[in-house]
Amino acid sequence: MATTSAAGTRLDLYRQIARQLRADSIRSSTAAGSGHPTSSLSAADLMAVLLAGHLRYDWKNPDDPANDHLIFSKGHASPLVYAMFRAAGVIDDAELLTFRKFGSPLQGHPTPVLPWVDVATGSLGQGMPIAVGMAVAAKRLWDAPFHIWTLVGDSESAEGSIWEGFDLGGHEVTPNVTPILDVNRLGQRGPTELGWDTDAYAARIEAFGWDALVIDGHDLAEIDEALSRARDAERPTAIVARTIKGKGISFIEDKPGWHGKALSADEAKRALAEIGDEPSRTFESPRPPKWSPPPVTAKAPQPKAYTEPVATRKAYGDALAALAGARSDVVALDAEVSNSTHSEEVKKTAPERFFEMYIAEQKMVAAAVGMQCLGFRPFASTFAAFLTRAYDFIRMGAISQANIRLSGSHAGVSIGEDGPSQMALEDLAMMRAVYGSTVLYPCDGNQTAKLVAAMADRDGIVYMRTTRANTPVIYGANEEFPIGGSRVVRGGAADDKVTVVAAGITLHEAIKAADTLAKDGVKVRVIDLYSVKPLDERTLIAAVGATGGRVVVVEDHWPEGGIGDAVLAALAGGGPNAGLRFTHLAPREMPGSGKPAELLHAAGIDADCIEKAVRGLL
Amino acid sequence: MATTSAAGTRLDLYRQIARQLRADSIRSSTAAGSGHPTSSLSAADLMAVLLAGHLRYDWKNPDDPANDHLIFSKGHASPLVYAMFRAAGVIDDAELLTFRKFGSPLQGHPTPVLPWVDVATGSLGQGMPIAVGMAVAAKRLWDAPFHIWTLVGDSESAEGSIWEGFDLGGHEVTPNVTPILDVNRLGQRGPTELGWDTDAYAARIEAFGWDALVIDGHDLAEIDEALSRARDAERPTAIVARTIKGKGISFIEDKPGWHGKALSADEAKRALAEIGDEPSRTFESPRPPKWSPPPVTAKAPQPKAYTEPVATRKAYGDALAALAGARSDVVALDAEVSNSTHSEEVKKTAPERFFEMYIAEQKMVAAAVGMQCLGFRPFASTFAAFLTRAYDFIRMGAISQANIRLSGSHAGVSIGEDGPSQMALEDLAMMRAVYGSTVLYPCDGNQTAKLVAAMADRDGIVYMRTTRANTPVIYGANEEFPIGGSRVVRGGAADDKVTVVAAGITLHEAIKAADTLAKDGVKVRVIDLYSVKPLDERTLIAAVGATGGRVVVVEDHWPEGGIGDAVLAALAGGGPNAGLRFTHLAPREMPGSGKPAELLHAAGIDADCIEKAVRGLL
Repeated sequence: MATTSAAGTRLDLYRQIARQLRADSIRSSTAAGSGHPTSSLSAADLMAVLLAGHLRYDWKNPDDPANDHLIFSKGHASPLVYAMFRAAGVIDDAELLTFRKFGSPLQGHPTPVLPWVDVATGSLGQGMPIAVGMAVAAKRLWDAPFHIWTLVGDSESAEGSIWEGFDLGGHEVTPNVTPILDVNRLGQRGPTELGWDTDAYAARIEAFGWDALVIDGHDLAEIDEALSRARDAERPTAIVARTIKGKGISFIEDKPGWHGKALSADEAKRALAEIGDEPSRTFESPRPPKWSPPPVTAKAPQPKAYTEPVATRKAYGDALAALAGARSDVVALDAEVSNSTHSEEVKKTAPERFFEMYIAEQKMVAAAVGMQCLGFRPFASTFAAFLTRAYDFIRMGAISQANIRLSGSHAGVSIGEDGPSQMALEDLAMMRAVYGSTVLYPCDGNQTAKLVAAMADRDGIVYMRTTRANTPVIYGANEEFPIGGSRVVRGGAADDKVTVVAAGITLHEAIKAADTLAKDGVKVRVIDLYSVKPLDERTLIAAVGATGGRVVVVEDHWPEGGIGDAVLAALAGGGPNAGLRFTHLAPREMPGSGKPAELLHAAGIDADCIEKAVRGLL
Repeated sequence: MATTSAAGTRLDLYRQIARQLRADSIRSSTAAGSGHPTSSLSAADLMAVLLAGHLRYDWKNPDDPANDHLIFSKGHASPLVYAMFRAAGVIDDAELLTFRKFGSPLQGHPTPVLPWVDVATGSLGQGMPIAVGMAVAAKRLWDAPFHIWTLVGDSESAEGSIWEGFDLGGHEVTPNVTPILDVNRLGQRGPTELGWDTDAYAARIEAFGWDALVIDGHDLAEIDEALSRARDAERPTAIVARTIKGKGISFIEDKPGWHGKALSADEAKRALAEIGDEPSRTFESPRPPKWSPPPVTAKAPQPKAYTEPVATRKAYGDALAALAGARSDVVALDAEVSNSTHSEEVKKTAPERFFEMYIAEQKMVAAAVGMQCLGFRPFASTFAAFLTRAYDFIRMGAISQANIRLSGSHAGVSIGEDGPSQMALEDLAMMRAVYGSTVLYPCDGNQTAKLVAAMADRDGIVYMRTTRANTPVIYGANEEFPIGGSRVVRGGAADDKVTVVAAGITLHEAIKAADTLAKDGVKVRVIDLYSVKPLDERTLIAAVGATGGRVVVVEDHWPEGGIGDAVLAALAGGGPNAGLRFTHLAPREMPGSGKPAELLHAAGIDADCIEKAVRGLL
């Protein structure tokens, strides 16, 4: 146990570090001419004590699996986290001053281009649920010794996703993650909703099943004790720290109008004179223990082979279960619809790796992002329509360089009776417009099985769209479906008259139309565009060339941003094409309820409509 | 005050109605062969008491502004709400049995194709914050006598947006809305997180500043009293009702496996025998008082005229302030960035109609949807990147036939130093793929002013994308910019060699490139595509025809789903085009921080890159 004088020495060390974090936050942001120094200063004491007293981190080895994790949910406090990296000695003074400059990894908000950053933040309300998701897997699957710390802004607690994060941790009981709320009272444009009412924050946190430690966020001894207690707690524990925005610099402390504003050179000089303009030094963090997670075991999955009609959502569940049974790094998450997405099949093969996220899609994607930071391969599923709820998390996942797999079931009008609220009709547009994304849309059980297996090894945001209804099996169980490929399922000879591009549910309609037309001697080339992004440009361009520029694209998705747009972009990229004659079949009116066949027809995307469209192009 | 026997009569009436609601919920869903009868039965007693005792509603006149509002946030309990409409006498037995059938307004989840439905629900966690948003405007702007009731599922309380709704009501103090939590313990695939722990729900609700009345949701007298107390309360008050899923039918009560499942004909027969298979009748609801909101006053707004460079976000704020000053039905909402989106300008002209939503974009869009139900014309703004957070609400807004205007600022890499988390690069794709949406992207102050005014009169989901940086003024203050139009800002003669399509920030780059090229004798036709959806196909097709099929599209947005895709779709819709030669300039790598000019160049979308692309097509 520390003697009083040892404790005094320790507090003195913290004070030195806090001073340096403040000075460096000012230096970097003033050099940049922008940034959030005041939001950094409020948390400088918290982070100083964390860095030197509690964050078990081998800075020379950021990949050490025993390292603690630190996620700045309030990503705009980037001057502070970069100042911590300087204090840890992993960047130098010159690098610190590249903050926000072109080409610098010290971007306006932290991203994993820096090895000590797990995930990109800056869209508020995300880092915290990501941290809790990480904690859930670390505890349940590894009982890992590391601790996860996340610095949370008071303003961002207005985001419901923060409460989804607390809900997750309360329900899954995660004492291995500590949200540290920096209650500095001032948001971007003025006071926060709750101001300095730390009791109100504590009441909310406690209502979601956590303990809350309310402290003075500038009292180093109180911080030290709270961080110790939080780390050692057996229940989920958060710290609610009353702080002062701009703390340490008299002329900006607790002043409105200073959010997201760098000090001028003169102001910085005055500020540094107050703080102490000493050269920055390097400090030690506590070392992590020696620990490694259990090694990943992997064998080839044994997917089911289908011969009878099956829904691709069911095939997804089967394939995921096979995959989870074969690979110990596969985890499944679902937003309380696992009996519809069929991800519940995983409970049969790897029950401990199935994570119920309840009806909270943001939390689900956040948790998936957190788990992939630990090396897991998450597959997260819900109705495709409800993935729209998580779009900001998906977008940010791409900036986080996250490797996550998403499956959206019940796509399009073909779901039938449930009506438009349950019909994903914008998911392809949404997912195509994610940086580096992969968008897959299988049409039968065997194709689904192969693509699910391929998803496990695919980096980035990988999306699979599945169908509610049973669809015929048109492929053999041993056929291969490379990502980026396509299949010509009808026609292919030189005398094809029209190319029809379809995927998923509409592929079967296209086949029916082609077979009907064939009886009349009209040869149609039908392309199964199961890989919507990346897309098989070569096959498309060749087909359109061979069919005199005549193309019908048919999709169960709004006309904008889906397969039609993707096909046109691919054709336009193929250089001059003479006389493209393009018909786009897609729902154009708001659907209601009805039988799937009725709705496909009303939307103009069933076999009849395809047949008419083809004849219209002849 | 009711005597005991009058009270007994009243309870007997409630009992009869509850019985009928149960019977009709079974009848309709069994006739449909799908639907959610058990989720309806748990709330039948709550809704029976509400309908006959508390819901002040003139069923013959759903447009009476004094009517109470009832929003089924748990939209899957549609058999119950339709049974209520039957009990109110506004639909008949035969119509009830069209539930979920093609063409029937009684869709799987309620939508405003029925006049008694304010908003579409079915994506969970939305109806409740919409109801609270409606209450905020009704109270603050009208002190309206009507009350807003919203039936909330226990499962959906996992959505953070529910807590955003409670946060809003707690902060704005809305005793005029009553969320009624139907705690039936069972979700779609099994038990909810909190089961029957009604105290846990109450603690959460209270922590967000509400009172919570915990009741037995099948005790008619308790319900009656709670509804009275909630209506008369001076503080925001919610009801937490412990209920039994499937209540009233012994063989499905509280049984797992019965979510979203209709009873078979035989089962329905047994169920109706238990409930009492009596013919359905019509019951009275309490009448609303005579009341009308203050009449809307409107005069022509006096927008600012710009001659000096100004950011379109600033011009948005100015124009919105002018509009709000001129029209009493315009309301502004912002997610705590009003000093960046400049919507704070409204505080100068109509401070009572500025609604601070703090950092909660779902809540903001929900509130906007709620307010437009009352006839207001909401304009909601935040960084365009953060509108991704509300995509599910925007999508559902289209199903709700909502007329809302959204403004997203800080679009694209051109924002500079803040980095990718703050850069909207998918917003055009997202907003184009919304049913019936309008997507606008102005390039200068005067154009922005005209388009903001046009937004007020435009139905549907209307989106404006604005730019962070100041841009030159290229249009006069008296020029007109019809939605669906475009402008040829350079070239236009028969000897133009290449068409360049741009909008917003890239338009200015395109102009610079065209002017440089003109010095070399290369004539370029530059189109300002300020209306991305609907889009001026005629001008585009004519331009591309006139320039030999040579087109460059340049946009500050990922390549997928934005202006490039929109242009290709328009050209493809124009019939056969001979030899399209298309170059698409758009960011293709993840940007970092830097100066706007550096990032525009790195993304390949500045004047230099446009010039090269044009030369490449010659």
